[in-house]
Amino acid sequence: MANLRRIGILTAGGDCPGLNAVIRAVVKSGVGKYGLEVVGIEDGYLGLIENRMHVMSLAEVSNILTAGGTVLGSSNKAEPSNFAIQQEGRWVRRDVTEEVLANCRNWNLEALVVIGGDGTMAGAAKLIERGLKIVGVPKTIDNDLVGTDITFGHDTAVATAAEALDKVHTTAASHHRVMVVELMGRYAGWLALRAGLASGADVILIPEIPFRLEAVADICQRRSRIGKRETIIAVGEGAMPEGGKVFIDHVDNNSPDPIRLGGIGKYVAQETERLTGIESRSIVLGHVQRGGTPTAHDRILATTLACHAMELLVAGQFGQMVAVQQGMLKSVPIDQVAGKIHKVSPDDGLVCAARDIGISFGN
Amino acid sequence: MANLRRIGILTAGGDCPGLNAVIRAVVKSGVGKYGLEVVGIEDGYLGLIENRMHVMSLAEVSNILTAGGTVLGSSNKAEPSNFAIQQEGRWVRRDVTEEVLANCRNWNLEALVVIGGDGTMAGAAKLIERGLKIVGVPKTIDNDLVGTDITFGHDTAVATAAEALDKVHTTAASHHRVMVVELMGRYAGWLALRAGLASGADVILIPEIPFRLEAVADICQRRSRIGKRETIIAVGEGAMPEGGKVFIDHVDNNSPDPIRLGGIGKYVAQETERLTGIESRSIVLGHVQRGGTPTAHDRILATTLACHAMELLVAGQFGQMVAVQQGMLKSVPIDQVAGKIHKVSPDDGLVCAARDIGISFGN
Amino acid sequence: MANLRRIGILTAGGDCPGLNAVIRAVVKSGVGKYGLEVVGIEDGYLGLIENRMHVMSLAEVSNILTAGGTVLGSSNKAEPSNFAIQQEGRWVRRDVTEEVLANCRNWNLEALVVIGGDGTMAGAAKLIERGLKIVGVPKTIDNDLVGTDITFGHDTAVATAAEALDKVHTTAASHHRVMVVELMGRYAGWLALRAGLASGADVILIPEIPFRLEAVADICQRRSRIGKRETIIAVGEGAMPEGGKVFIDHVDNNSPDPIRLGGIGKYVAQETERLTGIESRSIVLGHVQRGGTPTAHDRILATTLACHAMELLVAGQFGQMVAVQQGMLKSVPIDQVAGKIHKVSPDDGLVCAARDIGISFGN
Amino acid sequence: MANLRRIGILTAGGDCPGLNAVIRAVVKSGVGKYGLEVVGIEDGYLGLIENRMHVMSLAEVSNILTAGGTVLGSSNKAEPSNFAIQQEGRWVRRDVTEEVLANCRNWNLEALVVIGGDGTMAGAAKLIERGLKIVGVPKTIDNDLVGTDITFGHDTAVATAAEALDKVHTTAASHHRVMVVELMGRYAGWLALRAGLASGADVILIPEIPFRLEAVADICQRRSRIGKRETIIAVGEGAMPEGGKVFIDHVDNNSPDPIRLGGIGKYVAQETERLTGIESRSIVLGHVQRGGTPTAHDRILATTLACHAMELLVAGQFGQMVAVQQGMLKSVPIDQVAGKIHKVSPDDGLVCAARDIGISFGN
Repeated sequence: MANLRRIGILTAGGDCPGLNAVIRAVVKSGVGKYGLEVVGIEDGYLGLIENRMHVMSLAEVSNILTAGGTVLGSSNKAEPSNFAIQQEGRWVRRDVTEEVLANCRNWNLEALVVIGGDGTMAGAAKLIERGLKIVGVPKTIDNDLVGTDITFGHDTAVATAAEALDKVHTTAASHHRVMVVELMGRYAGWLALRAGLASGADVILIPEIPFRLEAVADICQRRSRIGKRETIIAVGEGAMPEGGKVFIDHVDNNSPDPIRLGGIGKYVAQETERLTGIESRSIVLGHVQRGGTPTAHDRILATTLACHAMELLVAGQFGQMVAVQQGMLKSVPIDQVAGKIHKVSPDDGLVCAARDIGISFGN
Repeated sequence: MANLRRIGILTAGGDCPGLNAVIRAVVKSGVGKYGLEVVGIEDGYLGLIENRMHVMSLAEVSNILTAGGTVLGSSNKAEPSNFAIQQEGRWVRRDVTEEVLANCRNWNLEALVVIGGDGTMAGAAKLIERGLKIVGVPKTIDNDLVGTDITFGHDTAVATAAEALDKVHTTAASHHRVMVVELMGRYAGWLALRAGLASGADVILIPEIPFRLEAVADICQRRSRIGKRETIIAVGEGAMPEGGKVFIDHVDNNSPDPIRLGGIGKYVAQETERLTGIESRSIVLGHVQRGGTPTAHDRILATTLACHAMELLVAGQFGQMVAVQQGMLKSVPIDQVAGKIHKVSPDDGLVCAARDIGISFGN
Repeated sequence: MANLRRIGILTAGGDCPGLNAVIRAVVKSGVGKYGLEVVGIEDGYLGLIENRMHVMSLAEVSNILTAGGTVLGSSNKAEPSNFAIQQEGRWVRRDVTEEVLANCRNWNLEALVVIGGDGTMAGAAKLIERGLKIVGVPKTIDNDLVGTDITFGHDTAVATAAEALDKVHTTAASHHRVMVVELMGRYAGWLALRAGLASGADVILIPEIPFRLEAVADICQRRSRIGKRETIIAVGEGAMPEGGKVFIDHVDNNSPDPIRLGGIGKYVAQETERLTGIESRSIVLGHVQRGGTPTAHDRILATTLACHAMELLVAGQFGQMVAVQQGMLKSVPIDQVAGKIHKVSPDDGLVCAARDIGISFGN
Repeated sequence: MANLRRIGILTAGGDCPGLNAVIRAVVKSGVGKYGLEVVGIEDGYLGLIENRMHVMSLAEVSNILTAGGTVLGSSNKAEPSNFAIQQEGRWVRRDVTEEVLANCRNWNLEALVVIGGDGTMAGAAKLIERGLKIVGVPKTIDNDLVGTDITFGHDTAVATAAEALDKVHTTAASHHRVMVVELMGRYAGWLALRAGLASGADVILIPEIPFRLEAVADICQRRSRIGKRETIIAVGEGAMPEGGKVFIDHVDNNSPDPIRLGGIGKYVAQETERLTGIESRSIVLGHVQRGGTPTAHDRILATTLACHAMELLVAGQFGQMVAVQQGMLKSVPIDQVAGKIHKVSPDDGLVCAARDIGISFGN
């Protein structure tokens, strides 16, 4: 048992549906059940070094369960040892670890709940080495964190992407068209795989299974020949042709994830039209995948993960990230998670099911 | 390996989002991958004894993925050994097992995919004893089937119920009211538990945890005293007061599940108003929980379960129901499933999480 | 021009999606454009007599556009001249007009924006007689206010009801069933008419067109004979059989609308089953029709009505209710609106269109 | 009265939610009420010259009310006098008017219901000159048709766009960001205006009100200074800077609308970031705005417009397009509509309301 009186909580990294459900559950159980003070830190580590934080009340987390985003704000400034700060209009990087540690002491934060993705966990791992007591809560719409089978936010992103694919479906069918929808997911194909499977895509292109354009074009033509009016292609932003590279939209060195992926969807559409003569269009779904009210599934998952994090915290089991493994709440050491990517195995059950019902992976 | 050429598929029991996703995946993989003929049987076992069935084409399952209901139709006439049939305006029960077996032979149905709940699996178990080759696919919005951690349809029903609770929330808050929402779930509390957790209910009443009205009233009053304008109570239809019984809406002896539950929500609202003086209203969400487009989650789950059922079928592993256990696709012998109910354990992780964030179970 | 410095705003009557959009637009334009102080009065007239009100800030109306309900709270206590107040556990009625007038003076409320339905407008009319400067904003999910073709909230309620009907559709079709869905609407049939038309109901029963059970049963049987598996009946809560009366669920003398309608849906289902032998079920959609995020349509309508109300206010045109007539923003004297009901004409364009496509009104 | 026995129906131009509702209502009233044969022509005028059409049954239009797209298919090949056809892999244009007329005679199509936008109406006008009996039904998600205040599909597109803006809102607020969302609408700003108003955008840029980047940047900075974490900018694809031109994404001479707009969103985001130093991102919502289940509002509107078109047809009032004017069903001569654009007036009520609540148009 850790005899805690005051803990901090922060959200870092990209937006993700369910963040508020985690914050709410941490405050409700922290204040209501465990009698702790919970200090909400604004904008991730930035608030911690700028002293922007406050003791949270139960009233503050009332009615936030269904809201997208995070009431605490977030930041993409990466880990404290290599932190990006805006100075006189320019971005510079420096190590703010000492400030983070000092302010945790100043504010009597005996432990932290850190909600974030792999970059955030990497940052947390270094702070743990320096003595901070941290429990991590995994967060990513991309589902690309190792150590946990699933994270909150992913189900909502899949639902949003599947809904967009459903909508595009009717347009494509009305006009005899190939429609390519570029989805998020970074270097992992979970989002495109699940959304494609959920919405009846005809082709799914993911980073883990490099594709051949000829194979994609061939499917479009075969479908056209047998009278199918449309072909729907779901593409993960990190997908790439065999022997090729990931497509880079642009590079932003201030970001913890400085390389922004993008452009593969447009490429696939252009090349498919060139190879087949069938009108082909692409859309990039973009940030809507990060927003919106979390699904019931994600609200429940976020809440249970948060409650489990609080259990670990009061039990003094620090340095762990809560996780779902084989359908059960577990935890893994944060340093085993940091900086790794959970990829789709080419013989994953979802891939096999997709192939069974005739979906092509373009290979 | 079973050298199958022709199989049958039927859906039985209550409506459930995802049925069409299963049918689609069975036909797509059956015809497209395994080269089988798939015979669609209309209205469950009824079509089998009335010779209403036909060989299904791939075109027939195009665009049904997102549709609620079942393109094959269903029936609630229970198991073949005790089948309800309408004769001259009255319902009579008789054993149609021989007709079922004969028609399977006449139509050269070498095996059946049977999609249904516990009643349907009980019926299937008896047919298996008589030599029929069957693979079962679990189906219930109530998630009350043993042998599988989760079934398709449940996530959609939870989403629908949570959305209704979300809507009721604002009405209650605007008027200083107790709102009681009666949800489905039969003798298990999964649906009320998950929907209540997902939507921030203040009280959740489920069959597995008998409640005391005084405890419920006490919460409403305490919330009122601290300025909370509303109390939302999610009630499973099978919930009951301590020492009491389940509430029966009416009895229908033609149904495989002849006792229809209902009325507990109205009771809780009336008694709460009587005990507290706070205006209390109830709504019964009803059949909307069975309908609608399946969530992305359920479409994926239904598709993978169906693909797994087809694998078992072509591998000759009959007499099994496909299942999800610890996050993985598995199967269980149908006779171990038949007639049992998967209940919420009072110390289930979801119950604990709910209690952690201050939700009461009225006990 | 009225040289206003401070105005009050209150919401009264039943919950209605879009109330917050009105409040937001009044505060944003009032404070931001016209330089007024806007005093938010809590819980309708109740806050006015209990001195529960405060000057609203722009921050307070940030992010409320999409929220259901009303951030100010509402009350169903009816008009000030006959106001229901809880005293020692009992409800008593008394005239609070003088307190209302006095508190408006005490708080320097030079004018009021009153958002409500016909009961609220009746109350406002009496206050106007006593010298209060009021502009009314019509509010009703039932669309039963005279003087305006449409009100915010109705489109959202229609959308919610149509979605429920859509969901019920698949269940009915899967089981060969008659499904009766009882909708709100009080003594007017707009909600049932629009929702039924939007969701492809087969029969629509509304108060303005008394129905014959035999005609309803006949349609169910004819549909059944030509192989249609389901009949969907949308019933407005105020619908009644020819020569019959509206069905009363219960009477609550504390309410401005003391007679609560309800029960017609169950009656229609029971009688239809009795007359046809076809399984018939009913659901009562209930309060979900009042809740939820307003549709884009209603957010726009609520915002433009609010802006128009503010224009009238600053122009000194008091005693008016803003309205939409023939697609344009107008206003009508509140006393011409009070206590009247806007009903569906039996030869309304919507009724004719419904008949044209084969929908029956059971007459 | 026109003594019609057989009519044709076709849908042309871009996809639009509600097309199936029109087709359904035309078939249901045509066959069921007026006793006509309704011939469904596939893929717009293309099916008419390729003899791809068939007599439609009531069963065919069952259950299509909620489906996006058009069961008849559409084509973007423009008007018959200048029709694009694919020959040996290349697109060529020729006049197919004579074939259209001949096939109408061959198939005994005594009149046509033509559903489409301004290009389609322009084509219809020329066919009317040649003696074809046509009633037009307006269709555009952009709401840019003259002669009618509103068209079906627009409300759904606004709802889809507003939902995307809602989702983006939370992301922007979590990260202190400017988010630019590029919406459809062609040369008219209705879609961006309504979606922006419905979702609480801070800036709305539309073609009818040329903007200055400095003004946009100024708003972002002012909001940032007063602590607002995000600025949401809704941009119509046809918006342009003062003195500038519309942005062209690409030119496709085979299209009736050969110039595809696009790129303005990216430009605004880049320039805003450059001028303000605040991180700015853009998304292009794209074709999802054309798809999906129509809103209840659009299903009702599409149904009533279709019924009115059938009334005109059987009354022999040819050469008219049905319309909504001042909230009522009307009609206008097709030749008065053809090739014109219904634009937003800079002092439209919606623009004024938007300004009243502090939304900027960047001018």
